[in-house]
Amino acid sequence: MGHEPEASAHDPLTALLDGVRLRLRDLNDGEPASYIPELGRVDPRLFGLSLCTLDGQVYGSGDRAVRFTAQSVSKPFVFALALADHGLENVLARVGAEPSGEAFNSIRLEPGTGRPPNPMVNAGAIVTSSLVAGDTQKARFDRILDGLSAFAGRPLTVDEAVYASECATGDRNRALAYLMHNAGSLTGDVEAELAVYFRQCSVLVTCDDLAVMHATLAGGGINPVTGERVVASRHAQHVLAVMATCGMYDASGQWMLRVGMPAKSGVSGGIGVALPSQFGIGVFSPPLEEKGNSVRGIAACHLISDQFGLHLMRATAPERRPLPPRSLHPAPLRSLRHRTRAQRAALDARAERIRVHVLQGDLDFATAEQTLRAALELPDAVGWFVLDLTRVGRIEPVAADLLRGLAAELRTRDLRMVLADPDERQAMTRTADEFPDLGRALEACEDELLTGIGLDPDIPVPLADCDLFGEADPGLRAALAEAFDTLDLAAGESVAPPQTVPLDRIVLWYVESGRLAVCADAADTVTTRRTWSAGPGAALTPADFPPRRTRKVVAERDTRCRTLTAAGFRRLREREPDAVAFLERAPLEGAETVDRGDVT
Amino acid sequence: MGHEPEASAHDPLTALLDGVRLRLRDLNDGEPASYIPELGRVDPRLFGLSLCTLDGQVYGSGDRAVRFTAQSVSKPFVFALALADHGLENVLARVGAEPSGEAFNSIRLEPGTGRPPNPMVNAGAIVTSSLVAGDTQKARFDRILDGLSAFAGRPLTVDEAVYASECATGDRNRALAYLMHNAGSLTGDVEAELAVYFRQCSVLVTCDDLAVMHATLAGGGINPVTGERVVASRHAQHVLAVMATCGMYDASGQWMLRVGMPAKSGVSGGIGVALPSQFGIGVFSPPLEEKGNSVRGIAACHLISDQFGLHLMRATAPERRPLPPRSLHPAPLRSLRHRTRAQRAALDARAERIRVHVLQGDLDFATAEQTLRAALELPDAVGWFVLDLTRVGRIEPVAADLLRGLAAELRTRDLRMVLADPDERQAMTRTADEFPDLGRALEACEDELLTGIGLDPDIPVPLADCDLFGEADPGLRAALAEAFDTLDLAAGESVAPPQTVPLDRIVLWYVESGRLAVCADAADTVTTRRTWSAGPGAALTPADFPPRRTRKVVAERDTRCRTLTAAGFRRLREREPDAVAFLERAPLEGAETVDRGDVT
Repeated sequence: MGHEPEASAHDPLTALLDGVRLRLRDLNDGEPASYIPELGRVDPRLFGLSLCTLDGQVYGSGDRAVRFTAQSVSKPFVFALALADHGLENVLARVGAEPSGEAFNSIRLEPGTGRPPNPMVNAGAIVTSSLVAGDTQKARFDRILDGLSAFAGRPLTVDEAVYASECATGDRNRALAYLMHNAGSLTGDVEAELAVYFRQCSVLVTCDDLAVMHATLAGGGINPVTGERVVASRHAQHVLAVMATCGMYDASGQWMLRVGMPAKSGVSGGIGVALPSQFGIGVFSPPLEEKGNSVRGIAACHLISDQFGLHLMRATAPERRPLPPRSLHPAPLRSLRHRTRAQRAALDARAERIRVHVLQGDLDFATAEQTLRAALELPDAVGWFVLDLTRVGRIEPVAADLLRGLAAELRTRDLRMVLADPDERQAMTRTADEFPDLGRALEACEDELLTGIGLDPDIPVPLADCDLFGEADPGLRAALAEAFDTLDLAAGESVAPPQTVPLDRIVLWYVESGRLAVCADAADTVTTRRTWSAGPGAALTPADFPPRRTRKVVAERDTRCRTLTAAGFRRLREREPDAVAFLERAPLEGAETVDRGDVT
Repeated sequence: MGHEPEASAHDPLTALLDGVRLRLRDLNDGEPASYIPELGRVDPRLFGLSLCTLDGQVYGSGDRAVRFTAQSVSKPFVFALALADHGLENVLARVGAEPSGEAFNSIRLEPGTGRPPNPMVNAGAIVTSSLVAGDTQKARFDRILDGLSAFAGRPLTVDEAVYASECATGDRNRALAYLMHNAGSLTGDVEAELAVYFRQCSVLVTCDDLAVMHATLAGGGINPVTGERVVASRHAQHVLAVMATCGMYDASGQWMLRVGMPAKSGVSGGIGVALPSQFGIGVFSPPLEEKGNSVRGIAACHLISDQFGLHLMRATAPERRPLPPRSLHPAPLRSLRHRTRAQRAALDARAERIRVHVLQGDLDFATAEQTLRAALELPDAVGWFVLDLTRVGRIEPVAADLLRGLAAELRTRDLRMVLADPDERQAMTRTADEFPDLGRALEACEDELLTGIGLDPDIPVPLADCDLFGEADPGLRAALAEAFDTLDLAAGESVAPPQTVPLDRIVLWYVESGRLAVCADAADTVTTRRTWSAGPGAALTPADFPPRRTRKVVAERDTRCRTLTAAGFRRLREREPDAVAFLERAPLEGAETVDRGDVT
């Protein structure tokens, strides 16, 4: 018997598998199959357990590398190959998809058609293996072996001794095949079909192989270890569905009740389990209960499902459900854009016109429905609905559909839906405007709002006309403006951020035209982040350039800035004492900033 | 026939249901059940479709309010009541949980026990309705009617005419009951048991009722409209599991293959569907196919499952899977704490010791496994593993288990796991330290790191000893320190933030002892957010108090600050010109700030 290296117990997932195995190691019920000597000779103490994740990590415990014949565990994969070769409808014309309520070797065929009930019992599997493409018996088996190997991610081989015994003792399967041939549901040469079927049962696998094979089904047909697409996603789905209702023979209902994950067992003691989008499991322990399923294998799957809440029919506890969408009204967020006093006043007076919803967690049907309900209940005053998807994980197709429908409906109500979504995962660009972050999304809404009321924020504001100088007369304004230097930047040009120390640097930046943005480059792997932007009329102090955060200042358009140094400010105070009074009363309140943390 | 109000089409989910219904309205196959005249007289054009969310929103289309008798759609709910009264094992001793492979009125009982195959066929439902608690026939039926009403969220009634007809024509059910009584699987008075069963079949429901009833199962037994817990979560799970394999009689396998959601149909034309944690659906259209299921009902469920990717066996497309955990090394994040030059240098030199992982989306098995793998592969140099859960949605139990295991394993490696989790949802406080945000989590790690190398960041640093004055001699230091004012704050005391304008305010804050924190109050509903903190030795300029973001400055401990005004600075320059030189070279680089946006 194999023993896992000591080191493996140092990771919690291996420890979990070890725990399950050790807890069940002394469960000595059942007997190994003995209808052929090769199976009866197996060490009944063998017990392995493996798990493969959808990014191809394989964890295991115990006799995970011991080889055994796949037997019926091969059936789902051969069914998958038949689906790949013929499509669902053609395969279903030859084999049903209903649980039979009978044992694995049931002889019951559908009245009229002679179809076997499903591909998970022997009769059905004889038909599906006959459907795999190939002109000759050898070609067909080669395709099956190649296919099983592709599912496992390594070249598999056949146990020729088991194959010979299966051929020699397979009376009941032979009878089934002849009955189906008689009923017309199995065509071709019966003995040749049976040879292919017996060989497929005799393919050698390990627990690790079963885990990878089932992870391939769980992941929609892509082998997570090799990256190879083995079957189409829809075919993987079909196979899991049939495993869910028929995989455990006449214990399938109990299995769904107690374990709740699609599975398939074989008489050599293997069980494979697939949890869609999560993992594949392989278990191996030869002693079987009366229905032909591994005793320890069943118990291990029960334990794993129970202890870790993996049952497909389990409802998420309400306290674990995702947070509902959160509206940030009545404390409206503002964009990253510096605004003039007039713009800010206009936005303040219309705070109810832009509404932000922040979503977090995966976006499924339930979350999408809550979002659309919130949007449809918005007061008429709201003109822009900003949906922040920057904290969302995966987005289910139904959620994307509902949000697309929402955008269309809102358009008919003159309400514009705008998305903040760094990944642009939605393919919703056709129906809603997308921006890479919430700040830019808000900025676009505010700009539209301001333009709509005659305050186009992109119209240049010469320094002499700006807010900054309060009620100063034109003569004084001209004198004040003259104390400023001029800095012209071409679109795309960037400059280093002004520093706050030494204390003798620029103390005021004024933007006359164009647009400046301050960017923080984060990790190399992360795109540049825009901290804020400033357009015509914005006056910036060193406080607007936090030193560690500001990596560069970029002109997003051709931009003219006017700058005042501390020295210039002192000279101005000496020459025009009144000017200082103006400046010291100036509304340099800094930017309205979006602080993501505010909405956690 | 009913017609939905025009207004309802204005929401995308109703539009979706309308679309499904309109697309199938002209599907005229099948005939209504006619074994009793009441069912045969129904208008075959009736067609209703409703959906209930897990927060109790009911959407509907068409004849959603038309009443019809529940018939077999009542079976899952009566099974649920039997489970509530006796528990799973006792119920399973009397009725199986295996798909029978036969029709709804199958007469097949389990050899030996005489158990009916499952509670979704007539024989099984006669047994489960006999198991509902109650001393008399009336008491038992009252409990059933109350129970069905609790599932529906409104008082249901019985159609007495249908009941009378069912009683009069129920030969086959009567035969089933007597067979089971003979086999010992049905005890009590056969006619009384049958009366309860026929009455339960005659309870009147609408599409909306079916949607709410199935949403109650999907939500783990809590009625989403009334908030009442009707059955335990585990019993709701059991019912859904049996519906998944047996709910559609001998079309259950095909149903799982093509629709992939647990469902139950009745001969009056109703179908109920439950998608765990998502919603309940009710469909009503009387014409049936040969197996006794509503033709339009089946087609509607197919459409909904296909179009919106709701099949339980569907694998999430790789491009829609959640993002893997992201390590922010080698661009380490820093806490919100202002650090002295020596502290910053020490942290810079040990940047690899603190590792941050940011998770986003729901935390399921797969994401947790990726996280633990990343943690276990960390280099030995790492001493702190900070897991940022602030962007995570729901957390599956298995994920919480794995993270608890990870924290324990990391402890044995002298690696400390620290969580940033505003909701403290994990109950992981026993195994890992939790902080409400990433900034505070990082600060705690940095403080431990610094203390461990003899740089305890809480030891007071008198102004005269600080970094700020570079290589100034003690006499000059004393003179410089004298230009500062002293501000003592008691723990918990807060002051308004210093403003950057007028330009004549405090230009430098120095913390000698204690701890200051700057907080931004966001929306009323959101807890105060700490923007940064500063301890002994920190020198702060106005740039550290961004005006819009800083709401108040709080002393978290008894704190002594020293402050320098612009006027004080000018006076100092006049009296001690050398001091200005020092100050102008001072390393006032501002705080190392955590900017959440950097990691999007």
